[in-house]
Amino acid sequence: MPYVNIKITRDGVTAEQKARLIKGVTDLLVEVLDKNPATSMVVIDEVETDNWGIGGESVTLRRQRG
Amino acid sequence: MPYVNIKITRDGVTAEQKARLIKGVTDLLVEVLDKNPATSMVVIDEVETDNWGIGGESVTLRRQRG
Amino acid sequence: MPYVNIKITRDGVTAEQKARLIKGVTDLLVEVLDKNPATSMVVIDEVETDNWGIGGESVTLRRQRG
Amino acid sequence: MPYVNIKITRDGVTAEQKARLIKGVTDLLVEVLDKNPATSMVVIDEVETDNWGIGGESVTLRRQRG
Amino acid sequence: MPYVNIKITRDGVTAEQKARLIKGVTDLLVEVLDKNPATSMVVIDEVETDNWGIGGESVTLRRQRG
Amino acid sequence: MPYVNIKITRDGVTAEQKARLIKGVTDLLVEVLDKNPATSMVVIDEVETDNWGIGGESVTLRRQRG
Repeated sequence: MPYVNIKITRDGVTAEQKARLIKGVTDLLVEVLDKNPATSMVVIDEVETDNWGIGGESVTLRRQRG
Repeated sequence: MPYVNIKITRDGVTAEQKARLIKGVTDLLVEVLDKNPATSMVVIDEVETDNWGIGGESVTLRRQRG
Repeated sequence: MPYVNIKITRDGVTAEQKARLIKGVTDLLVEVLDKNPATSMVVIDEVETDNWGIGGESVTLRRQRG
Repeated sequence: MPYVNIKITRDGVTAEQKARLIKGVTDLLVEVLDKNPATSMVVIDEVETDNWGIGGESVTLRRQRG
Repeated sequence: MPYVNIKITRDGVTAEQKARLIKGVTDLLVEVLDKNPATSMVVIDEVETDNWGIGGESVTLRRQRG
Repeated sequence: MPYVNIKITRDGVTAEQKARLIKGVTDLLVEVLDKNPATSMVVIDEVETDNWGIGGESVTLRRQRG
């Protein structure tokens, strides 16, 4: 019955990559904790780089600086 | 002062349905816990079906399989 | 497949009250959005009053002030 | 290593305002808790006013009522 | 820079199992999305079974029913 | 009406420090976005170091390694 929320920057992640994340996290929960996959949820949030900060500045600005 | 976050798949939920969710959850908090509705918040997140996984696969794929 | 997170202050909410919240929110999702209750999750987080702020101060301090 | 999530209504907040929020929250974590800014994350979620409820109704409706 | 939040029921998960979850999720983010592990965060929340509902009832009650 | 969630490791943060975080974040929302402090919420979650991972390992292990 686990619930997993993955937050990443919006960077053109494909449906295929999202499917791999969902599968990989679910397999991990089964393997490590013996959870039932049928009730394991994974939700992926894609966040604009202006809206994500690290080190006190947005990812947009960090990338511009290189 | 409760805060409630509802995550659902993005499926054309109408403003009227959202209003019913907000009203219903707030009424429930008042009824069960005697909370003050004036400071009760409800935030609804709509998530693309590619980004929501259950049973190890995305909702998009589950629906395609029928 | 909805996921609902309810955050409330830790104030001696009983298991019976929590059960009513879980039931009430799930019923609402079925009624308003025709969701499948079998895959509807509700998670309740109880938060210490020192850790919850509103109006710029903690709930602990607001209550002391009366 | 803190993680901060700020949820606000989607109201035309500019990249410059977001940058000030990210900087301000990070500085606060450094000042109050002596956290390392390099691993301090801030994620801003902007929420449609139909999807945000307070006092049992959506922000959209509250604003229409004035 | 991803942030992952894993919510599970509080069921005596060991530090070693948590370490495997943290390692597994981080490896997955590197493998699928080429993320930098140094700024990838994983936070595990353990939730009392009274506070987790599925199918309209708490996990505590579901387990009692068997 | 903003909602802010601050996640930090559980490290003996005092009520006074929490009060400063709550006040500081609320002031920032007023200053940058002209938000109403009366309906601005801040919730602080303290997370065990076993449950927080960065760089693929728990904070507990990172600190042991020094």
